[in-house]
Amino acid sequence: MTINSLFLGRLIAIGGNEDKADELIVLKRVVQEIGKSDYKVGVITTASEDPEKRGEDYNNVFTTLGAAKINIFDIKERFEANDRKTAKSIAEFDLIFFTGGDQLRLTTILGGTRIFDAIQEHLVNGGLIAGTSAGAAVFSDTMIYEGKSEDGLFKGSVLSTSGFGFVDKIIFDTHFMARGRIGRLVQIVTSNPTCIGVGIGEDSGVILKGDGVAEVVGTGQVIIVDGCGIGVSNIMDIKPGEPIAVENVRIHSLVDGYGYNFRKRRFLTPSSLSMKEAL
Amino acid sequence: MTINSLFLGRLIAIGGNEDKADELIVLKRVVQEIGKSDYKVGVITTASEDPEKRGEDYNNVFTTLGAAKINIFDIKERFEANDRKTAKSIAEFDLIFFTGGDQLRLTTILGGTRIFDAIQEHLVNGGLIAGTSAGAAVFSDTMIYEGKSEDGLFKGSVLSTSGFGFVDKIIFDTHFMARGRIGRLVQIVTSNPTCIGVGIGEDSGVILKGDGVAEVVGTGQVIIVDGCGIGVSNIMDIKPGEPIAVENVRIHSLVDGYGYNFRKRRFLTPSSLSMKEAL
Repeated sequence: MTINSLFLGRLIAIGGNEDKADELIVLKRVVQEIGKSDYKVGVITTASEDPEKRGEDYNNVFTTLGAAKINIFDIKERFEANDRKTAKSIAEFDLIFFTGGDQLRLTTILGGTRIFDAIQEHLVNGGLIAGTSAGAAVFSDTMIYEGKSEDGLFKGSVLSTSGFGFVDKIIFDTHFMARGRIGRLVQIVTSNPTCIGVGIGEDSGVILKGDGVAEVVGTGQVIIVDGCGIGVSNIMDIKPGEPIAVENVRIHSLVDGYGYNFRKRRFLTPSSLSMKEAL
Repeated sequence: MTINSLFLGRLIAIGGNEDKADELIVLKRVVQEIGKSDYKVGVITTASEDPEKRGEDYNNVFTTLGAAKINIFDIKERFEANDRKTAKSIAEFDLIFFTGGDQLRLTTILGGTRIFDAIQEHLVNGGLIAGTSAGAAVFSDTMIYEGKSEDGLFKGSVLSTSGFGFVDKIIFDTHFMARGRIGRLVQIVTSNPTCIGVGIGEDSGVILKGDGVAEVVGTGQVIIVDGCGIGVSNIMDIKPGEPIAVENVRIHSLVDGYGYNFRKRRFLTPSSLSMKEAL
C-alpha cells in the first residue's frame, strides 16, 4: 500500500490552463463534486505573483458557476497565514481552491501555519480541496519545483522539496505533455520506486478520494509513471549531471472517465471505475 | 521476433546535434565501428535544405577523424539518384553517412532509386550505414515525419509514412528528450504494439547489428518504448483529435554502454551486453 494518508474528502489536482471561458469541463466537474448548489468557495491566491488578477479570474468563473459565496484569500505573508480567525473560517467552505503560480510560494508562506493545518484538517474531515498548476503540484509530499524538461533524465536536474503532503508518495506534475515533462517524473520514480508519478495535462484533472482511487476529467491526458517493475538502474552509481539508465518504467495514459487505483497500482477503465473492482 | 530484416552490416542511428567540435564521442565511435584507419566515407546530404554547408561540415569533421577519402553525394533530384555509376560506387565506401534535414526529402528523392538499392544492399552485405536526425528517422519502416510533441497523445497528431525500412518494426525518433517527443512514440506503439519505439537523444546514438542487438553511445539517453504489455487502449474507438488512453507502456532509458535486444525485447546492462545472454 503506497498511500498512508487517508482522508474523507477529495483532492482535485488540475494540470493548469483549465478552460475558464468556454465549456469549463474541468471546473464544472469540480463544482459537481461539491454536490450542492448553494456552495461557498475559498480561493487561495498565494502562489501567484499577481494575486489580484488571479483572484478576479476565479471570482468571475465561480460566479458564472453559481457559487453562493466566494472568498479570495489573498495571503502574502506568514503572519496572515497564522491568523486564528481566518484559519477557523476554512471549515465553512465547501471548496478550497489553490490558483497557479509558484509552488515554493505556497510552501514557504503557508507551510506550518494555522491556515495550512486548517486546510489539511478540512480534507481529512471531508472537505474538497482543488488546485491548478502550482496549486496542484504542492499537494505532493515530494514536490517538484524546478527542472528543465529536456534535462529530466540527467541526475540532479529535477529540484524537489517537501510539499504539502496531502497524499503520500504521489508526485503531481502539471502542464505535463505541453511541456514534455516525463523525464522529471521518471527521475523521481527511479530514485524511489515507491513513489507514483502523476503527470497532469492542461485542461485536465485528477479527482482523488481517500481510498486511493482516482478519476480523470478533462480534454487531455493524465500520465501515470509507475516504477514498481524497475529492474536495473544506474542512479546510485552516477554523479549529478550524468544521464540516467533505467529498466522497465511503466506508463499509463488516462483520459476523461478513466481512472487509477493508487493502492493497487491498477489502470481503471470507465466501466471498471464504476464497479467494485476499482476498490 | 520483431526483426525480419537481417543484415551483416551495422546501422547507427544518431539523435541529432552530435558534437562535431569538441570530444566527438559519437562520431569517433562511428569511425571506430569501421574498424580500419584508411577508410572511405560517403556523405549523403539529400535531407538538407543547405547541402553545401552540411557537406562542408561533415567533410571537416571526417577529415579531423582521419578519413582517407570523403565523397559528398549532393543528390538533389531523382535522376541523379538513379545514376548507375554513382550507385555502383556505393559499395566501395566503408561508411555511408546521412546528414540531417527533412526525412521526407530522403524518401521522396532516394526512395525506389538505384542509389537506395545500392545502400540497402551494402548494409545487407556488411556495410556500415549511419545517419543523424532526419538521416536516422528515415531508417524506420514506419517513419515519423511530423507531429507536435505536446499533441503526441491525441489520435492522428503523428504523421508517418513509409521510410527506408532498413529494420522492420523499429521506429526511430530523434532529438527526443530535447523536444519532449515521447507521446509520438507512445501513439505509434499503441496503434501497433509489434513496433518498438526508439527515441534517440541529441549527441547520442544506437549501434544496431543485424542480430537485433543494439548498443548505445553518447552523452544523452536512448528511450525504448515497448508496447508488448499493453492492456486496454481506446485508440480504435476514438476519433482523430481525441486523447489516447493506454494501459501499461514499458519504457527503458539507455545510456552510453547499455544496450537492448530488439528480438527478445530485453534491456541490457554493459556487462550483459558483452556476454552471451545478449543474444
